[in-house]
Amino acid sequence: MISQPLDKQLPHGVADLFFNDAARKRALERTVAETFARWGYSEIIPPMFEYYESLAAEAGPQLREEMYRFFDRDGRTLALRADLTIPIARIVGTKLFDRAMPLRFFYVGSVFRYEEPQAGVRREFTQAGIELIGAATADADAEALALAMTALRAMGLDDFRFTLGNAAYLQATMRGLALDDADALALREAIRRKNTPELTRLLDAFDLDPARRRALAQLPALWGGAEVLDRAECVNDDARAAIERLRQVLARLVHFDLQAFVTLDLAENRGMEYYTGILFEGFVQGIGFAVVSGGRYDKLIAHFGADLPAVGFAIGIERIMMAHQARASIAPDVIAQEYGAPVAAARANGRIVEVDVLNRADAALREYARIRGAREIWWRDGRVEALL
Amino acid sequence: MISQPLDKQLPHGVADLFFNDAARKRALERTVAETFARWGYSEIIPPMFEYYESLAAEAGPQLREEMYRFFDRDGRTLALRADLTIPIARIVGTKLFDRAMPLRFFYVGSVFRYEEPQAGVRREFTQAGIELIGAATADADAEALALAMTALRAMGLDDFRFTLGNAAYLQATMRGLALDDADALALREAIRRKNTPELTRLLDAFDLDPARRRALAQLPALWGGAEVLDRAECVNDDARAAIERLRQVLARLVHFDLQAFVTLDLAENRGMEYYTGILFEGFVQGIGFAVVSGGRYDKLIAHFGADLPAVGFAIGIERIMMAHQARASIAPDVIAQEYGAPVAAARANGRIVEVDVLNRADAALREYARIRGAREIWWRDGRVEALL
Repeated sequence: MISQPLDKQLPHGVADLFFNDAARKRALERTVAETFARWGYSEIIPPMFEYYESLAAEAGPQLREEMYRFFDRDGRTLALRADLTIPIARIVGTKLFDRAMPLRFFYVGSVFRYEEPQAGVRREFTQAGIELIGAATADADAEALALAMTALRAMGLDDFRFTLGNAAYLQATMRGLALDDADALALREAIRRKNTPELTRLLDAFDLDPARRRALAQLPALWGGAEVLDRAECVNDDARAAIERLRQVLARLVHFDLQAFVTLDLAENRGMEYYTGILFEGFVQGIGFAVVSGGRYDKLIAHFGADLPAVGFAIGIERIMMAHQARASIAPDVIAQEYGAPVAAARANGRIVEVDVLNRADAALREYARIRGAREIWWRDGRVEALL
Repeated sequence: MISQPLDKQLPHGVADLFFNDAARKRALERTVAETFARWGYSEIIPPMFEYYESLAAEAGPQLREEMYRFFDRDGRTLALRADLTIPIARIVGTKLFDRAMPLRFFYVGSVFRYEEPQAGVRREFTQAGIELIGAATADADAEALALAMTALRAMGLDDFRFTLGNAAYLQATMRGLALDDADALALREAIRRKNTPELTRLLDAFDLDPARRRALAQLPALWGGAEVLDRAECVNDDARAAIERLRQVLARLVHFDLQAFVTLDLAENRGMEYYTGILFEGFVQGIGFAVVSGGRYDKLIAHFGADLPAVGFAIGIERIMMAHQARASIAPDVIAQEYGAPVAAARANGRIVEVDVLNRADAALREYARIRGAREIWWRDGRVEALL
């Protein structure tokens, strides 16, 4: 008889779901699958494990490191799938490459990643997503982005916002730079984190032509609405094409009436080994990390055989469940940085106002306000910041 | 670039599903889940892997041997789940033991077993099933059996038949026999396989009282309708209670109008370490092995904590898909053992008659006829055997 305490019965990062939790999860999965199906996507079900070499070949070092590996009895190494995009790329590249294009697939299922133990980190989690394969067009990019938003809406979340960038812009801007891998990574990280002092230091250290230096230096400021695209410095035709592609995608989002939900962010460059074009993340109120992540990866499928462009995204179903739970708790209307007459007046008028009593730094308070689902932050200097 | 031939891309026993195959599988899963839900069962979703020691403790030697094991990074051994019953027993025994009984859970999901490579053997396959926990009654047994049949009907298969036995009968009959494990296993196998010569040889070798010898010797013949129960020799009260339980279950199946689909088989004794009461298997036309398997296991949950009786079953979803495919192909009306006037006459009357040209042995021909979905076998000696 096992006499361990209850929470020791399971390995870190996996969970038992039953009663309402299981029903809610299945309802979300059903809803998102129906949404994908209505847009012409059909389900694809890869195996839960396959050869490690297949999964690892194009996985990128971090994902590869996070895979659960084990041995088949003939000695070959197997791995639990860590995403669905790579298995689908294998299937399309080897089995479906001669079909009429584009192929539209969706999936809903478990993926497995070893991550260090910390609160809320899951090692088995559920992704629902799509892959739109065989179309390199802005129409395809816009469809993926619009479908991601539509899926969130179908799941009852309409207070989302998306960041949108284009990996091709930074790739083109950095092309030909004589940087070693460590310097290139440091540069990308400084840009991604919008760490302007560090970026200036790095640019000073590198020997760059003035146009390229300007292009890289301005990247942390290139986020916001469509006007960002007019400000981007383009050092070559590929950089110009990357900016033009974002303009086309935004224009197509107007047809879906979804353009208002997008914030451009040209500094975004996660997974640049993998993404070759647009890349986006979706956020919802109450959750401090992306619930959707996607982009264009035109080189992946060729690894397995046919050379086919593709764009897709994955939604984290457990994160959607967290968002619903966050919304079910009562969110404050306002997070105020300090007490004062406006706080008292707002409370007298029936609004829920929560005052920061931990003296958080600005970024931390903004993050906290987002997690709490607050609609406004009232800063000490009198500014009112609307969230979403 | 991976340039292996296509069928080498995947490990043995796992598969990619897409297009109609994926849609059909999901439709079956949805249908069976809806059926379970209408009977008051709610879904439970255990993790895909957990500690090997949890899964293995009550798994029986064969299932334990078939588990895929791997290591967590803290050195503990994990295993992919090889069934859903054991994880659910863990959940109920440790987390839900104080709820109002009975608990009714259903599940639909992948399980993983390493089996030797051979045609059609899957190492990842999908089970849909139920566990009815906290009720030791004949009503509970009958509900499980009736729900298994109802689920097959809902999935479009109504040409099923079920075998029904009671592990408690043989357990009671063998109780106190001074046999070592090997002899006891040989005896059970001879009974299960209805191998009368071997059974006689074993009974001659053991020193048995006459009543017990009679009880064991007649077991291979104890299959058929309710009259079997009148013929069973009972050496003690527990054996009598086991027979009485089967009588009660059959009586309750009459309420469901399902009694005609059951064949009693008192010699059935698979998984006797595990099952403590009724045990049953369901077969459908066109498939040579059980598509449903279940029974009562009153000792399992106690291993994890609370001592709760339970009965349940699992349906093999891929096997159901095979049954549908078998039905979609044109099944012969008759498999005849040889050519002759009856074959010619039947064909002239429009019936599909297939003659065995491989001179199969009787058992092999019966198996083949079942796989082909034939309705009758015409034996060389003139006997007509109706299948199902």
